[in-house]
Amino acid sequence: MKIGLDVMGGDFAPEASVSGAILARRELPADSTIVLIGNQSDIHRICEQEGFDPSLFHIVHTEEVIGMGEHPAKAFQKKTESSIVTGFKLLVSGKIDSFASAGNTGAMMAGAMFMVKSIPGIIRPAISALVPVTSGKSTLLLDVGLNPDCKPDVLYQYGYIGSIYAGSVLRLEKPRVALLSNGSEEEKGNLAGKAAYELMKGNPDFQFVGNVEGNDLFSDEKADVIVCDGFIGNVVLKEAEAFYSLVKGRNIQDDYFERFNYQNYGGTPVLGINMPVIIGHGISNSTAIKNMMLLSHEVVKSDLIGQLKKAFT
Amino acid sequence: MKIGLDVMGGDFAPEASVSGAILARRELPADSTIVLIGNQSDIHRICEQEGFDPSLFHIVHTEEVIGMGEHPAKAFQKKTESSIVTGFKLLVSGKIDSFASAGNTGAMMAGAMFMVKSIPGIIRPAISALVPVTSGKSTLLLDVGLNPDCKPDVLYQYGYIGSIYAGSVLRLEKPRVALLSNGSEEEKGNLAGKAAYELMKGNPDFQFVGNVEGNDLFSDEKADVIVCDGFIGNVVLKEAEAFYSLVKGRNIQDDYFERFNYQNYGGTPVLGINMPVIIGHGISNSTAIKNMMLLSHEVVKSDLIGQLKKAFT
Repeated sequence: MKIGLDVMGGDFAPEASVSGAILARRELPADSTIVLIGNQSDIHRICEQEGFDPSLFHIVHTEEVIGMGEHPAKAFQKKTESSIVTGFKLLVSGKIDSFASAGNTGAMMAGAMFMVKSIPGIIRPAISALVPVTSGKSTLLLDVGLNPDCKPDVLYQYGYIGSIYAGSVLRLEKPRVALLSNGSEEEKGNLAGKAAYELMKGNPDFQFVGNVEGNDLFSDEKADVIVCDGFIGNVVLKEAEAFYSLVKGRNIQDDYFERFNYQNYGGTPVLGINMPVIIGHGISNSTAIKNMMLLSHEVVKSDLIGQLKKAFT
Repeated sequence: MKIGLDVMGGDFAPEASVSGAILARRELPADSTIVLIGNQSDIHRICEQEGFDPSLFHIVHTEEVIGMGEHPAKAFQKKTESSIVTGFKLLVSGKIDSFASAGNTGAMMAGAMFMVKSIPGIIRPAISALVPVTSGKSTLLLDVGLNPDCKPDVLYQYGYIGSIYAGSVLRLEKPRVALLSNGSEEEKGNLAGKAAYELMKGNPDFQFVGNVEGNDLFSDEKADVIVCDGFIGNVVLKEAEAFYSLVKGRNIQDDYFERFNYQNYGGTPVLGINMPVIIGHGISNSTAIKNMMLLSHEVVKSDLIGQLKKAFT
């Protein structure tokens, strides 16, 4: 298995990327290869600083970089030798099995949508987040940002996609899928949510357990997968980040709240496209990059894409 | 000024209501009268228990009660001698200046919409919440539950209503009004939000400061009033409640987080109707009831309704 990483992407690149890859190399099984895409001399320099043998990586040298602030689509079209575009070329030609980056999110989405493309049958891809819950586990929340306005059939598909993701990557049996709503009763919801509820009720594709509310977000008592549109998913996630910052700001040390530290998050696969593409947070530190590599490995190993293709085509 | 309270409404009624009214009586100025609407013998008994002279209240005796679980509209129509319906009768006939209850929310809304009615020119009334922010103050969030799907012109009006509320009740000069969105840039938002942004930009009615994100919710650095639809407002508020419960569950004692204790919240006026109606949380304790009385006093004193009428008609 060949796991690709854009070394040049992210606010703390290339240092955090290479350090994170070194951490991942120590945890990943020997039969998986980490393919670093980026400036070779940077990679060698950082490996040397860390006392790590760079020949344990496969390196694809690139000179160009798409900056965090650049116009995504334009940069993607113009900078054809950049680490991000090179990563996508390697991915679609089968030279790597997954591609991950904490770099320019828009450019990553451009590659995901225009080079890798949606799985036929999937209306709109989504991105997800793992929300730490009090039991010590996590629930899956999607969409958390791609589609601010979701039609009911898109929400339905998110339930199905989330169920497959939770089953394969999180290894849950018969994951319980819920709709995020403004009340637990069936008649609650906004217009799209109420129509989605009707579609989901008694469906043959996944186990629908009804509505959950904002105060169910940090518990897995009711659901393993929570579906919402990308607008509310984004707000809900950033509110949790704000709360984590408040806890830190009050100098509270607590293991559970530390799990909300978004600097450690390993990113999210773009769910619903033909190959594994993982997008990380711009502020990813080396732990986050390591987690992004482990997540890439898990996504490939579980054949998440194969299962999504089978379900939708 | 005559401030009406439904003594029979709420999970801990009538004990919490009467105790809360006693606390409020001690804080309110002498020229304001508290009018307790409910069972006289209950009121006398609780006053006696607390060593408080019940003649310091004006009591309107009622026998009937609309339960927390009853069908709101049906109960409102049928139980015409209940404490809630009596409260609305007193309000619309001018015998009290405001009416507050922690009872059946749907019945309270029925009275607000069908007896008190919307201010002409206001498309849809809203309810709001005060969100504690790190500066020690609060920001105003609306709508937090009445309208799960808001058209752009409704969101616009919420900005105007919120600005008037923040100016009169919170006594802020030129309150800064923002839209809750999935990014700070102008082009971010869902369809309704983007259209509302266009309406708000450079408007003559209130000071619009653009988009804020989920991680701006607990800060007043950017805005004093945050506008969203009632679906997302509900989810955002319940997520904050969940976080407060997590903090308590971890046995963390912290003054700032204690401000999130929703059991103390004094309820919300229904914004956009012709008279002051304040709706409390069902789980209101005596502190919450006291705060609901103080809020009632503030709403009447500030002539919030008069200002809203002037602005919209």
